[in-house]
Amino acid sequence: MKILIINPNSDQEMTRKIQNTADTFASGRYEVTCVSTPGAPSFIETYEDQITAAPGMISLVRDHQECDAFVVACHCDPNLDVLKEITRKPVVGIGEASMKMASMLGHKFSVLSATEYSIPSKEVLIQKYHLERSLASIRVPEIAGTEEERYFRAAEEAITEDMAEVIVLGCAGMTGLDKRLQRKLGVPVLDGVICALIIARGLIEYGVSHSKGRQGHVPGS
Amino acid sequence: MKILIINPNSDQEMTRKIQNTADTFASGRYEVTCVSTPGAPSFIETYEDQITAAPGMISLVRDHQECDAFVVACHCDPNLDVLKEITRKPVVGIGEASMKMASMLGHKFSVLSATEYSIPSKEVLIQKYHLERSLASIRVPEIAGTEEERYFRAAEEAITEDMAEVIVLGCAGMTGLDKRLQRKLGVPVLDGVICALIIARGLIEYGVSHSKGRQGHVPGS
Amino acid sequence: MKILIINPNSDQEMTRKIQNTADTFASGRYEVTCVSTPGAPSFIETYEDQITAAPGMISLVRDHQECDAFVVACHCDPNLDVLKEITRKPVVGIGEASMKMASMLGHKFSVLSATEYSIPSKEVLIQKYHLERSLASIRVPEIAGTEEERYFRAAEEAITEDMAEVIVLGCAGMTGLDKRLQRKLGVPVLDGVICALIIARGLIEYGVSHSKGRQGHVPGS
Amino acid sequence: MKILIINPNSDQEMTRKIQNTADTFASGRYEVTCVSTPGAPSFIETYEDQITAAPGMISLVRDHQECDAFVVACHCDPNLDVLKEITRKPVVGIGEASMKMASMLGHKFSVLSATEYSIPSKEVLIQKYHLERSLASIRVPEIAGTEEERYFRAAEEAITEDMAEVIVLGCAGMTGLDKRLQRKLGVPVLDGVICALIIARGLIEYGVSHSKGRQGHVPGS
Amino acid sequence: MKILIINPNSDQEMTRKIQNTADTFASGRYEVTCVSTPGAPSFIETYEDQITAAPGMISLVRDHQECDAFVVACHCDPNLDVLKEITRKPVVGIGEASMKMASMLGHKFSVLSATEYSIPSKEVLIQKYHLERSLASIRVPEIAGTEEERYFRAAEEAITEDMAEVIVLGCAGMTGLDKRLQRKLGVPVLDGVICALIIARGLIEYGVSHSKGRQGHVPGS
Amino acid sequence: MKILIINPNSDQEMTRKIQNTADTFASGRYEVTCVSTPGAPSFIETYEDQITAAPGMISLVRDHQECDAFVVACHCDPNLDVLKEITRKPVVGIGEASMKMASMLGHKFSVLSATEYSIPSKEVLIQKYHLERSLASIRVPEIAGTEEERYFRAAEEAITEDMAEVIVLGCAGMTGLDKRLQRKLGVPVLDGVICALIIARGLIEYGVSHSKGRQGHVPGS
Repeated sequence: MKILIINPNSDQEMTRKIQNTADTFASGRYEVTCVSTPGAPSFIETYEDQITAAPGMISLVRDHQECDAFVVACHCDPNLDVLKEITRKPVVGIGEASMKMASMLGHKFSVLSATEYSIPSKEVLIQKYHLERSLASIRVPEIAGTEEERYFRAAEEAITEDMAEVIVLGCAGMTGLDKRLQRKLGVPVLDGVICALIIARGLIEYGVSHSKGRQGHVPGS
Repeated sequence: MKILIINPNSDQEMTRKIQNTADTFASGRYEVTCVSTPGAPSFIETYEDQITAAPGMISLVRDHQECDAFVVACHCDPNLDVLKEITRKPVVGIGEASMKMASMLGHKFSVLSATEYSIPSKEVLIQKYHLERSLASIRVPEIAGTEEERYFRAAEEAITEDMAEVIVLGCAGMTGLDKRLQRKLGVPVLDGVICALIIARGLIEYGVSHSKGRQGHVPGS
Repeated sequence: MKILIINPNSDQEMTRKIQNTADTFASGRYEVTCVSTPGAPSFIETYEDQITAAPGMISLVRDHQECDAFVVACHCDPNLDVLKEITRKPVVGIGEASMKMASMLGHKFSVLSATEYSIPSKEVLIQKYHLERSLASIRVPEIAGTEEERYFRAAEEAITEDMAEVIVLGCAGMTGLDKRLQRKLGVPVLDGVICALIIARGLIEYGVSHSKGRQGHVPGS
Repeated sequence: MKILIINPNSDQEMTRKIQNTADTFASGRYEVTCVSTPGAPSFIETYEDQITAAPGMISLVRDHQECDAFVVACHCDPNLDVLKEITRKPVVGIGEASMKMASMLGHKFSVLSATEYSIPSKEVLIQKYHLERSLASIRVPEIAGTEEERYFRAAEEAITEDMAEVIVLGCAGMTGLDKRLQRKLGVPVLDGVICALIIARGLIEYGVSHSKGRQGHVPGS
Repeated sequence: MKILIINPNSDQEMTRKIQNTADTFASGRYEVTCVSTPGAPSFIETYEDQITAAPGMISLVRDHQECDAFVVACHCDPNLDVLKEITRKPVVGIGEASMKMASMLGHKFSVLSATEYSIPSKEVLIQKYHLERSLASIRVPEIAGTEEERYFRAAEEAITEDMAEVIVLGCAGMTGLDKRLQRKLGVPVLDGVICALIIARGLIEYGVSHSKGRQGHVPGS
Repeated sequence: MKILIINPNSDQEMTRKIQNTADTFASGRYEVTCVSTPGAPSFIETYEDQITAAPGMISLVRDHQECDAFVVACHCDPNLDVLKEITRKPVVGIGEASMKMASMLGHKFSVLSATEYSIPSKEVLIQKYHLERSLASIRVPEIAGTEEERYFRAAEEAITEDMAEVIVLGCAGMTGLDKRLQRKLGVPVLDGVICALIIARGLIEYGVSHSKGRQGHVPGS
């Protein structure tokens, strides 16, 4: 079994971190490779960033049909619809997987966001997934402190003030923080990369993929 | 005043029809030009079609900054978010303009769709715009008859069976059918091209455009 | 083309301010007249105020059938349903027009309200228009300072704390503040009077009005 | 204890029928009088009908402050908000009382409507009360047969096809049909007049009325 | 007429307080008895508490078929669905009765909760009843002060900060506080025990109970 | 790794079928055992059935703390909340797992239900999980034909008439039908038993379980 994780940006350091997380979680039970997206910007923030990343992401899926499933490792699930459309293999977004899994683990979840700028598009995504009534808040950390301290404080406020019962890391770049935060916070902390791997492997083993039902209709002709 | 209508596909015949509609409506009060999108497919149906059209659409907006506003003339409003992002000029989608205007003109509206294939993505769009409680139905015409007869029958059923009080033409390709259908149906029939021109001209005259509020935050850096 | 703006109250000073805004915006392209409502209270706040204003508003519409469209210039859209019912000409409420237009210009909008008292009825109206998921907040200004300073501070808090990307002036009495606030705030600020004029003129030129579909049924017999 | 039932129309026959229902239900435990509304139309169907009835309804409430509560006996709850506003006594609408009570008695309810014309305004009312997810359907009877037969068939279809578990009589004019239909249908059938009397008497005995919380704020000054 | 109030816990002191409230309200017009639930825990907080209370509650209903209606006197309405299922007599929960009645008395209501722990399950219940858009807030009092002072301050904040227009006592244990709080707060304060008695007596007099419509279908065979 | 599947009823034949499905899917990668619930009815249909099954289910969880996770194998997820409450190990319901997974695989899903009787409680569950906007329909098969033929026709209608893109088997008793239906229907068909195993194993490997965040508060004291 082989899963390809697509990092929609071109940041090699982030790709390495994701690969690390995936290797640790898969621990040899299946093969998993994380690749950066050729031609993509170094960080996905704007809608144009998503568009710029699209051709490279499409090529990665088309060129790796030997893989059994694909994971899109950016929490805004960029171009997820189009990737599901062009392959019969499962494609799992870390945003969708982590937030739907979070909704199974507690009354409400909070998402940690790297920047305030992306809160509105996160809200659009959460409404698209019909998860708004499971959302406690989207929290952006203050600036001071180490990365771990900053996200810890933001998560703590989400728990205390917004009654979050589950914390979702809202950016693939936060990968690796989950266990350390979870130990200190005492509530589940979800890394979307791992959630997506769980769903992807499950779908492969089950022999199920995204519905092609609509393509039974003769499209547009 | 100059408005550029972007036909997101490369179908010259459809571009001509849209230009025709726009000329008749503008009737010399302002300048309006409809262009096909270079590099775009001949019809926008799938998510990949939308992605393929994106670079050409982005270029059209960037290369025509002498225009006062832009209209995206495909009822699924492809790439509307990214176009709003890259310019300070108003960008209006015919889907959003026609359906929000329809919600002002009656209790519920129905959308005529060219193909059954695009109903799900129309539903996603309608939920994105929070219009689902104003929607009576999405209707696809039967195959037999002339274009006008087919859409007339579909609209008539929407009125009789789904209690639609307003009809929205759900594809730029239907442009020009509105008045003929409206006369026979006795309820408002909206062509998104005209609705978008109304909003675009209004915004230009008002000196208002899409909010850049989010860009006050320093994005992603 | 001739548009009648109905100020649902009897405050001549407010009527003059609205006329001023309309004249500046129309700038001679079409005729627009604002009238106070005979028999109406000097300010519309309670439900009884709305009822008291109704007969006068109905008479204004019935007595001015030479006009091509009507605008109701109170942000709670009082008696809008009944006016739409009694004429085949377009009737546009400044509440509906401004808030639906705001929803096209940013992720979420905030409404500035003159009094805390009217927040609940504004919420009812916003739910009637299915706009609650596009609403960032309804903000009432503090008491100290000039009118402009007070609304500026309220709007600024809406932007900073509630993530509003668009500001809607929630009372016809605030007319004229839009451009000054917009310059200082850096986000679109909408005056409902102008938004309603944009929609009204557009509908006139398009030859479309509120649906009379329901009246095909024989009512009440 | 004394309850005044306001029939918002001027149809004396309907007033007599409502009085009859009320007398039978109250059976001497408290005093209840049904009055027609002076100046009102003979049937409330359009928004203008509601406006026309308003001054008479307001006078009835103001002139009968010796009563302990008021019931508005038209299923569209016309002018209910304004009546609640002008008195400290409970005012109960038969639409609100019957539909909220129905939501306690089964998974979903259907409303029988006298005319298809009023379905949209019934839907608006149901959304205003946030009851849309408890609604199975709004059904209008076919024309043939006696009144009882027609409503029986409409209700039966609501139960069989729409899975309604409770039936609500959607017009005060249907008063008296409830028990006969209930016996034949085997599910609860609610007459709003009785539901409103239950709530009104309860509120009187409890010493509770509509909140005047908002009037703690100094309105409009 | 005889109503049995089931206190789902085994706390005799709470049962006495509820009996007191009921006696005062019924004041001899009908018979009402409050009983503790055999085998139930002394306080219902967790889901397991609800399960533990179920057999005793079921027995109480089955063993008291001489009663005309049943009231479940715990604001989380534990086991209400099953009790409705096993009897043809009305069964009314104090949570459902008080919150639906509250929604008739003002724009939004707040619920006072004894513990922060139960806020999430209260939210689940409120969503089950489709009341989330009528909810201003759920407030837990601070620790310092007498019971009355603590709930008064929590209610006052709900009114001032959350714009609550009605206060609902969110625990049967608060019974008796309503009138004292209402006098000081100036808005309706609802004790669910009384609200449920109003509905229960009304249903008995009306001869209506929970729908058995579903049991027309042959279940499970 | 060891997973205990709790069949909430006492039907040994159904337990055997579920064990079969689980064995085939796990195929030796982890240990999985399905047990019937002592003291439970032979089929879970009513709310009382769920209550009757509760003590046995609670005992199974408490007595098998050597297991790493629990699956509740009834599509109405009976007593899921209480089981999550009493253990720190993951507890997964086949209803929640299958329907949330279905929402990742297509625009809308339909649920096949064994009996019409349980449609309302399925609707309540779907609303509890906020999945109503992802639901195409709940379909009950006609009576004639083999089990496979009947469910095939019901699923086919869901696809053709309700535009379902994914089919969910709505009863643990249907286990084993998924692959045969999927081959004939051409869209994903989900067996909740397998979906729950995927989630359960994933949570075990991830070291994450249902949030105990609420229990940081001192409950009930």
